[in-house]
Amino acid sequence: MRPRAVVWPRDTAQVREVVELAKEQLIPLTARGSGTGLAGACIPRKGGVVVSFEKMAAVLEIDQENHVAVVQPGVSLEQLDVEAARHGLVYPVFPGEQSASLGGNVATNAGGMRAVKYGVTRHQVLGLEAVLGSGEVIRSGGKYVKSTAGYDLTQLIIGSEGTLALVTEAMLRLYPRPAESATVLAPFATLAEITRAVPVIVASGVGPLMVEYIDMLTMAAITRAQGLELGVPAELREKALAYLVVVLEGNRQERVAEDTEEVAELLAALGALEVYVLPPAAGAQLISAREKAFWVGKAAGANDILDVVVPRSEIAGYMEEVATAASETSSLVSGCGHAGDGNVHLSVFQADPEVRHAVISRILEAGLRRGGAISGEHGIGLAKKEYLATMESPAKLALYRRIKAAFDPANILNPGAIFDP
Amino acid sequence: MRPRAVVWPRDTAQVREVVELAKEQLIPLTARGSGTGLAGACIPRKGGVVVSFEKMAAVLEIDQENHVAVVQPGVSLEQLDVEAARHGLVYPVFPGEQSASLGGNVATNAGGMRAVKYGVTRHQVLGLEAVLGSGEVIRSGGKYVKSTAGYDLTQLIIGSEGTLALVTEAMLRLYPRPAESATVLAPFATLAEITRAVPVIVASGVGPLMVEYIDMLTMAAITRAQGLELGVPAELREKALAYLVVVLEGNRQERVAEDTEEVAELLAALGALEVYVLPPAAGAQLISAREKAFWVGKAAGANDILDVVVPRSEIAGYMEEVATAASETSSLVSGCGHAGDGNVHLSVFQADPEVRHAVISRILEAGLRRGGAISGEHGIGLAKKEYLATMESPAKLALYRRIKAAFDPANILNPGAIFDP
Repeated sequence: MRPRAVVWPRDTAQVREVVELAKEQLIPLTARGSGTGLAGACIPRKGGVVVSFEKMAAVLEIDQENHVAVVQPGVSLEQLDVEAARHGLVYPVFPGEQSASLGGNVATNAGGMRAVKYGVTRHQVLGLEAVLGSGEVIRSGGKYVKSTAGYDLTQLIIGSEGTLALVTEAMLRLYPRPAESATVLAPFATLAEITRAVPVIVASGVGPLMVEYIDMLTMAAITRAQGLELGVPAELREKALAYLVVVLEGNRQERVAEDTEEVAELLAALGALEVYVLPPAAGAQLISAREKAFWVGKAAGANDILDVVVPRSEIAGYMEEVATAASETSSLVSGCGHAGDGNVHLSVFQADPEVRHAVISRILEAGLRRGGAISGEHGIGLAKKEYLATMESPAKLALYRRIKAAFDPANILNPGAIFDP
Repeated sequence: MRPRAVVWPRDTAQVREVVELAKEQLIPLTARGSGTGLAGACIPRKGGVVVSFEKMAAVLEIDQENHVAVVQPGVSLEQLDVEAARHGLVYPVFPGEQSASLGGNVATNAGGMRAVKYGVTRHQVLGLEAVLGSGEVIRSGGKYVKSTAGYDLTQLIIGSEGTLALVTEAMLRLYPRPAESATVLAPFATLAEITRAVPVIVASGVGPLMVEYIDMLTMAAITRAQGLELGVPAELREKALAYLVVVLEGNRQERVAEDTEEVAELLAALGALEVYVLPPAAGAQLISAREKAFWVGKAAGANDILDVVVPRSEIAGYMEEVATAASETSSLVSGCGHAGDGNVHLSVFQADPEVRHAVISRILEAGLRRGGAISGEHGIGLAKKEYLATMESPAKLALYRRIKAAFDPANILNPGAIFDP
């Protein structure tokens, strides 16, 4: 969709002017960071205007004493990582696409592989400055982890996909940057065994940074795409239906080594076909390859990408249902996911739109039936809203509309994203 | 205020019936858990009805695999702790009053001493069932740490002090229960030195469970009230204007010992007059005495209790302003606080209501000027709303009112708490 115009505001006052004008003339506004979202939330409306945050891309402050970064929305994760590293700190959200903007991360509540240890964007944003659809500028939160002084507008704006306000500044939590890390790779004969292993690893108290599963198809695809050699012999690769990857980190080399050994022993006892402690370079390559699973799926011709979240104990049973739905509709569904937090990424290969709609509906409904949600981190945007419309409770959808009206009475901010007006 | 009636619903359907009736007859409803709140949010309105959650006090489930507790709102922290401990797990929010109900904790976003490690109630609530003021029952979230599928109603209801919805069920995060802990006590000649020490401790990567400061007056009062002997000699007590308490925890005794030593060395280098590693019994007694600081203040005749939060680097400068405001108005202000997260608890002794209002206004405004908030964890309720009304931005207050109307169109849920209609 080609917008009527693109504006590149340079400061909050200009964002405000744009909103005032749009409100007066009822022009839809769609915020855009780096355009890396996976649910179409930054696609403009017909006759609408794109508000690009490319020129509001400064790291305003790294506050060493309070462990806080203050950023403009156009700052990329990569840019913030470079700045934080200079101070021995890290911003821990790692959705796997480092060119993504922080504004976009806030809009979708971006997650990723480190969520099992650090949580997601929602858990790192301490405060925001934002322009409401009414044209008013508000500041919420601050450089502190807690307050109870009115409704939490910060949390409400996070994950609202540009429909409530345009974020013009964010205060983000930083953490000491750990010096040491280790990667453990364990092939398993079944995904069910992986699912049983995950709560044991989490309960062991080692506090893993990542707990990822990768199914056979995805592992074959990403290692091939990246020319990655992990040292798993062919006869084992044939038996392994899925892989578990556990990454540990810390400041003291001996503790990380001790934790790695504990995890390796647990995995062996829990039925792993083999346990590999990867050398640092191979570990980093595997994580980098895993990050690119989305692109590998797309390149292989995946017709849609899902990211259902279910309680982590439900992953095995859920994946069986997914496999049944796939085979009964002659679709191919492969995936990998954040086993530690129940978020599964599925590439759906099914060219026929009607059949695709049917199989996706079955997959999403199965997730909801098991106490999950349609999207763990990609969002609803335009791509999944018809599913939300039929599967979400009418009371909640009606409440969403009333909340949107409270922020954006003229319905100019990304109208029609998440839900229809 | 004596209510017109008290109702004790036994399930969600009964809560819903009460709300429907109240909506029809425009009767104010005030939710009540254990009545331990510090901002008056559970005081009924004239002609209103109290909805007590005493009979909805069951721990519905401890889900070992997903590390989740499902509780009714009347469950106390103590009750949940007993159940979680049976499974080797812990619910980490520790506001210092174990008889408090989880429903009340959700309503005020309760915090406490462990927030520096685990965050506050907001960070532990994964999902809610709630009855809106419209009478509709909604469920939000679930047994997962992340989702992006519509607005985050869970987070909006947390901290809303009973004004948006009546919570009828909560899903809470549990964690492995660490086996070992240690307490380090360090007297300092000035509070400024403590404030400089705190970021160093936090940045060291040891991940302390608690980082508390206690001023001289409060330390004298709580040790006397509890008959506590910490082994600090009289000549040192005379020099020490404030104390820092750091608690560490973990699963492996040797790591906790190593971390304790690291913290002790850091504190010595940072100017502590002395560093004491307390024996386990004395450590537990000190924390228990610190919990009761509020009651000690009240018993000593404190006229009001504040809990301003500021960026942690601002504590020293802020406390100087507080001392100036106190001395210029001939008031006595003593305190202790969560140094690790910038939340300071102040007992204000000033019998004259007008002078008290003036000194409290100065103290709150100084906190806001330093980028803080009026309340870190106690809430606004009825007790602090006149301060919020004059100090908060009109745009935000207007937005709060529109959000309330979206949840509670008839304005029956705790009307007049946080802000006037």
